[in-house]
Amino acid sequence: MKTSIDCIPCFVRQTLDACRMVSDDPALHEKMMREVLGWISEMDLSASPPVLAQRIHRRLRELTGVTDPYRDAKAQQNQMAMQMLPDLQAEVAASDDPFSRAVHLAIAGNIIDLGAKSGLTDSDIHASLEQAASEELLGDLEAFRSAVSAAKNILYLADNAGEIVFDRLLIEQLPRERVTFAVRGVPILNDVTRVDAATVGIDTLVEVMDNGSDAPGTVLADCSEDFQKRFAEADLIISKGQGNFETLSDSPGNIFFLFKAKCPVVADQVGCPVGMQVLYCGRKK
Amino acid sequence: MKTSIDCIPCFVRQTLDACRMVSDDPALHEKMMREVLGWISEMDLSASPPVLAQRIHRRLRELTGVTDPYRDAKAQQNQMAMQMLPDLQAEVAASDDPFSRAVHLAIAGNIIDLGAKSGLTDSDIHASLEQAASEELLGDLEAFRSAVSAAKNILYLADNAGEIVFDRLLIEQLPRERVTFAVRGVPILNDVTRVDAATVGIDTLVEVMDNGSDAPGTVLADCSEDFQKRFAEADLIISKGQGNFETLSDSPGNIFFLFKAKCPVVADQVGCPVGMQVLYCGRKK
Repeated sequence: MKTSIDCIPCFVRQTLDACRMVSDDPALHEKMMREVLGWISEMDLSASPPVLAQRIHRRLRELTGVTDPYRDAKAQQNQMAMQMLPDLQAEVAASDDPFSRAVHLAIAGNIIDLGAKSGLTDSDIHASLEQAASEELLGDLEAFRSAVSAAKNILYLADNAGEIVFDRLLIEQLPRERVTFAVRGVPILNDVTRVDAATVGIDTLVEVMDNGSDAPGTVLADCSEDFQKRFAEADLIISKGQGNFETLSDSPGNIFFLFKAKCPVVADQVGCPVGMQVLYCGRKK
Repeated sequence: MKTSIDCIPCFVRQTLDACRMVSDDPALHEKMMREVLGWISEMDLSASPPVLAQRIHRRLRELTGVTDPYRDAKAQQNQMAMQMLPDLQAEVAASDDPFSRAVHLAIAGNIIDLGAKSGLTDSDIHASLEQAASEELLGDLEAFRSAVSAAKNILYLADNAGEIVFDRLLIEQLPRERVTFAVRGVPILNDVTRVDAATVGIDTLVEVMDNGSDAPGTVLADCSEDFQKRFAEADLIISKGQGNFETLSDSPGNIFFLFKAKCPVVADQVGCPVGMQVLYCGRKK
């Protein structure tokens, strides 16, 4: 997906949020904002939005030496969601259609995204869970169910901390021996790395790998060779979140994108209102 | 008031809004956004925020030849507010304290601001009127009442279309022979010019002048000599709206600023929560 002109105000806001997350120094904030504005004024809009976010966060790491500014936020999000896990597992188990319930909840968890929204409250999460219980998905759940049944090699692309606990609910409904769970290679925003997969116990359920990249999405050319090989070999890719959608929406592969459409640009791309729960089937090979 | 780093995301959003108001051409939107991002990356943050807005709108006029893109929006805002005028006049007349009521309503009308907010609905306006009826002002109403009584020469700095009808309510409570009502010299955003003062009948109540400038505020050095003289001679200045506050908050003069604090930067400057009704007394000569 290309970058829209409507992404630009959001990049600027995200940059300021990120500056404040890594440093209290107003001089650094101003320096970084000026640099990023200069970059955006000349940026190639044919790149996907996470490519710029990657560049911004790399530069912030370089300027501050802080390698994982969202570590505490991620730990807190994981902890909050883990407290909900037993109830959510019981809810899935008691459902007439546990697979469907787990898909809805995995998408609901995508509300926990510090890239798309500066502040996130418990009530945002509860509202998202309410929505998961009552509203339809945009997409074909039965096609997804069939794809899961048929797949021999499933690559699950994770997104954010906290959300990863909701991913666990869906992984518990998948044929686990056929699933690989992929996380980011380097900390970026509140996206998950290996440590988060271990914190929420996903490493005890399925194989976990990292993609070798520090993009808040899946920029294939930037990922490790090993990851690229796994991506090419997978006969089903389950892609969580807007960042993975933005970077993979034009990629070949049997990809199902599970996310909440949190911004007008992405919502427009899939043809739905902002806030909708999406199960979008990407292009086949 | 200096420009805050928090103004920057807002500038970028305003620029995109303004581009879309003047043209449907995506190539022009992109060109303009790139130019403005370059400007902001190098801008002097010691200038007040309306100075950049002035530069942006000048450039848009130059690129498109459209001199008054907000003309229809302003006409519609004036018309909507004029329909409310008889009821509001009756409300002021029936009040125990018509002056106080008119001050509250004049501030409530400052919700009609296309610079601070992209969309504005009837319900925003009604919510603002409800607030005017029930919430306290930040400021000293009695000091303002005394200043009005004592003043021989009152300069009233207008702000937005629609809002100007609410200004009329306050002007009807002032010693009219001592009041001059000042509008912008050139169309900028939905700020009022002479045509709006005539549309809502203020020209039949008090003397109307324009300030000779196309800034969405009062940048004194950019105003006409005549206006600068009147400003210096006035013993009371009633300044409406955020743009006038942002440009005059550090000026000498007996200035009362009447506005709604619509953004966190301005709210922080006066020390109140966003959304509060403000009657702020500026520095004396």
